[in-house]
Amino acid sequence: MERKRILSGVQPSGKPHLGNYFGAFRQHIALQQEYETFIMIADLHALTTIRDAELMRSLTFELALTYLALGLDPEKTVLFKQSEVPEHAELCWIFDCITTMPFLQRAHAWKDAQTKGKKEITVGLFNYPILQACDILLYKPSLVPVGQDQKQHVEMCRDIAQNFNNIFKCKVFKIPDPYIPKEVAIVPGTDGQKMSKSYGNTIDIFADEADLKKQVMSIVTSSVPLQYPKDPNSCNVFNLYKLFANPEELKKMENNYIKGGFGYGDAKKALLAKILEYFKEAREKYLKLKNQKAFIYEVLSEGGKKAKKVASATLNEAKKKIGYI
Amino acid sequence: MERKRILSGVQPSGKPHLGNYFGAFRQHIALQQEYETFIMIADLHALTTIRDAELMRSLTFELALTYLALGLDPEKTVLFKQSEVPEHAELCWIFDCITTMPFLQRAHAWKDAQTKGKKEITVGLFNYPILQACDILLYKPSLVPVGQDQKQHVEMCRDIAQNFNNIFKCKVFKIPDPYIPKEVAIVPGTDGQKMSKSYGNTIDIFADEADLKKQVMSIVTSSVPLQYPKDPNSCNVFNLYKLFANPEELKKMENNYIKGGFGYGDAKKALLAKILEYFKEAREKYLKLKNQKAFIYEVLSEGGKKAKKVASATLNEAKKKIGYI
Repeated sequence: MERKRILSGVQPSGKPHLGNYFGAFRQHIALQQEYETFIMIADLHALTTIRDAELMRSLTFELALTYLALGLDPEKTVLFKQSEVPEHAELCWIFDCITTMPFLQRAHAWKDAQTKGKKEITVGLFNYPILQACDILLYKPSLVPVGQDQKQHVEMCRDIAQNFNNIFKCKVFKIPDPYIPKEVAIVPGTDGQKMSKSYGNTIDIFADEADLKKQVMSIVTSSVPLQYPKDPNSCNVFNLYKLFANPEELKKMENNYIKGGFGYGDAKKALLAKILEYFKEAREKYLKLKNQKAFIYEVLSEGGKKAKKVASATLNEAKKKIGYI
Repeated sequence: MERKRILSGVQPSGKPHLGNYFGAFRQHIALQQEYETFIMIADLHALTTIRDAELMRSLTFELALTYLALGLDPEKTVLFKQSEVPEHAELCWIFDCITTMPFLQRAHAWKDAQTKGKKEITVGLFNYPILQACDILLYKPSLVPVGQDQKQHVEMCRDIAQNFNNIFKCKVFKIPDPYIPKEVAIVPGTDGQKMSKSYGNTIDIFADEADLKKQVMSIVTSSVPLQYPKDPNSCNVFNLYKLFANPEELKKMENNYIKGGFGYGDAKKALLAKILEYFKEAREKYLKLKNQKAFIYEVLSEGGKKAKKVASATLNEAKKKIGYI
């Protein structure tokens, strides 16, 4: 039986942290068991913010390395760089020509930028819902995993696909369904806000042990003294511990909090141990692969070829309907 | 000595007429004697108006056939279809990401459309000055031949190139100079307005003789009777005749007008004879090549390969500066 195809895109954006892992990487990698999975490193999109060649290269490399260290199997999953598949940009122009300005002006990101009075918004930022539609439609996936806040993109993608199919009286583009993963964990940062690089509150998966310890120890806690009972559910440490512990371990930790005589330092140590245990294999693999640059580039290059094969077949169908071939 | 490179783009738009010939084709083809010439059939741009595969194919074929019939030598000139060179669309996305919305909103075509209150303008129409910049910059031409009304496009192109070079601290893109041909003939249509397909006033170069005669005979003239003297310079027939006649013939025709006893019918017959004589070889070649579809497609395919070689070298330079490779 043919497996359903699924596609995810991720922008290269820095050191991977627990928020990235529980919010995206874990799910993406799990998909390979059940689906024909495509993971795209969205470096064309990244150009809207990154204007430094060394940074672009290192972030791209880091992201590929991260996926491989975390268990992405390049035999099962196609991992590729968007910029290696020209079909994305080619289809983007085609969709530009059949999409109206008012349609694109309805995009949330554009509206937000307008509201904030940003004057120097780039055409790329304006046009990116169209490129995103291409990213999806070229691969004819059955499902597109998206967060709740990205639902509009998939809706726009569906509209664009339908519009092309209507104009050129065809069924070239498959209308994809959004797939909103059931339980996307909320990952608090060290300051209790959502974990995010831009807040500087991350715990980085592949930081060396000393740095990792420093990050965990910096988690903000209440000022309840050691001997008193504490509320586990309002504690950032406990909420992070939840992500790793099994029900039994969790129950035990909960009791430690409630009965008192257990300090936040103890909780942090337990959390650190869990993180190190959970990512043991991944961290080892990361260190090993980090120096195997040729292998990583080979994986991306092979992935690029596989992606191009699928993408160019779809684009050629579209080109026939337009009359380019 | 290396020849200077020059690039022209033409949208496939219908049966070629005298206005196209004296306004563009003639100059484009003459360039091959002196320059390394690239002629691009702008079918990506054409998608902003053509949404019919058969029409797209036939207009593209017709345009290639026209150039070849009129004397374009595929050994000297690279004739290619824009859609066969993905680098145009790829560079378009890159420039999208470094170009601001206000910059693009200054384009005349966009402003005109806004002023006219057109609601359903496509993103392609908005974005096309950027694609046009790519068309030019990928080939690093020394000169870009443009009409007076297209000067802004070349200025925008220069700004975009400069902007990329500044952001990425490089000299990847050569800043091109506009080349406004000295004497661009004004070609009146059969009704005296500028000859244009949209006015329905054309005289078509490759129409069969009966149709061509009909078109010439339909030229609007004054009601001055046969025996009276006539003003040559206000006469559409005379103004068209000018385009073909040598000074001696022109002097003779002028005298015919001034002395009287010479009717517009006579002038039209003389004009028709001139057109047939001038385009004799081209019309014969047109009929011959019309059925050599494989040859035409071969010329386009070879041209596409040559164009791609130049375009991809430039794009790769840009990609290195961005950090994609």
